[in-house]
Amino acid sequence: MLKIDFWYSIGSTYSYLSVMRLSTVAQSSGVRFRWRPFNVRHVMVEQKNIPFKDKPVKSAYMWRDIQRRAQKYSLQPTLPAAYPLAGLVLANLVATLGAEEGWAEAYTRATYQRWFESKQPAGEEPNLSASLADIGQNPTRVLEEAQSSRISDALSSATEKAMEIGVFGSPTFAVGDEIFWGDDRLEDAVDWARQGRLG
Amino acid sequence: MLKIDFWYSIGSTYSYLSVMRLSTVAQSSGVRFRWRPFNVRHVMVEQKNIPFKDKPVKSAYMWRDIQRRAQKYSLQPTLPAAYPLAGLVLANLVATLGAEEGWAEAYTRATYQRWFESKQPAGEEPNLSASLADIGQNPTRVLEEAQSSRISDALSSATEKAMEIGVFGSPTFAVGDEIFWGDDRLEDAVDWARQGRLG
Repeated sequence: MLKIDFWYSIGSTYSYLSVMRLSTVAQSSGVRFRWRPFNVRHVMVEQKNIPFKDKPVKSAYMWRDIQRRAQKYSLQPTLPAAYPLAGLVLANLVATLGAEEGWAEAYTRATYQRWFESKQPAGEEPNLSASLADIGQNPTRVLEEAQSSRISDALSSATEKAMEIGVFGSPTFAVGDEIFWGDDRLEDAVDWARQGRLG
Repeated sequence: MLKIDFWYSIGSTYSYLSVMRLSTVAQSSGVRFRWRPFNVRHVMVEQKNIPFKDKPVKSAYMWRDIQRRAQKYSLQPTLPAAYPLAGLVLANLVATLGAEEGWAEAYTRATYQRWFESKQPAGEEPNLSASLADIGQNPTRVLEEAQSSRISDALSSATEKAMEIGVFGSPTFAVGDEIFWGDDRLEDAVDWARQGRLG
């Protein structure tokens, strides 16, 4: 089975496109994706890589670009979505618990849908509890456990691991040692996993 | 005839891919590209958009990404190429004169080939004179005229115009009011020119 590590942070705008289309790509390509939440904000601050802050022209372009590409993938976001997310860390702590327990993908899709399609910022209420209820998880239990030191350590470890292998943004697709950054490199990553080259 | 404005700066790394494949895309798509050199460094400083400086991880990725994509387009660069270019402004002054006189595309391809494939930085010797000689232009005449105040004003005007329509990086493809940034958006721009949507 061909495998790709899907490194992502809830809070990344372009990751919406990947989160929403990854199951389709997995089915059509035969590649299995491992969902690996990390804290992209920590990486970006560390690496002085702040893509949209104080960049109004680039930010406006980003939303337009996402809108056009969403349409191509038959998605219907209401843009711009809230950005940046105040609850980025909590959103990804929940996803980290989800990765342990097998529901990271379902939760991530649910929370992105509410964030991008229903104007509910991820990582805060009502999005958190509603997304967990959507996927059959108990919000009270999950929110308590997600904020434990064990899960906090797990998210920090994942973030360190991501930096070790060269991840600097979200989404990133890792195929062995090869890193592909951006939703627009998903097809490149799949090509690489299948044949070791693009095209 | 479908038309796309190709806004570019010699000095941009990813623009190598577009410069080298644009004639092929033009032929296969029936789209005509208007080559419009501008000073991307001026725009980026103005907009605090410095993509690779002090970002070693992202820079290393950028070269690897270009290498993989170059292979896909049957190009054979020797990477990393010299970056940033000391002679960025002069390189684009020459291209601006070339745009007036009808040889911007030929010069831009020639100078990128020497920069990316023969380790000769664009905008300085021997690249400047050799690239001009390659395309049948007199280096002495061109280099004098390119450094006139008339051409300097023309490059400044082009740069202002680029900013007015929302260009913030190179390469950018403009289809009417729609802006597509990056070599990886060339196909999106062609789709938009042909059918007003992607895919």
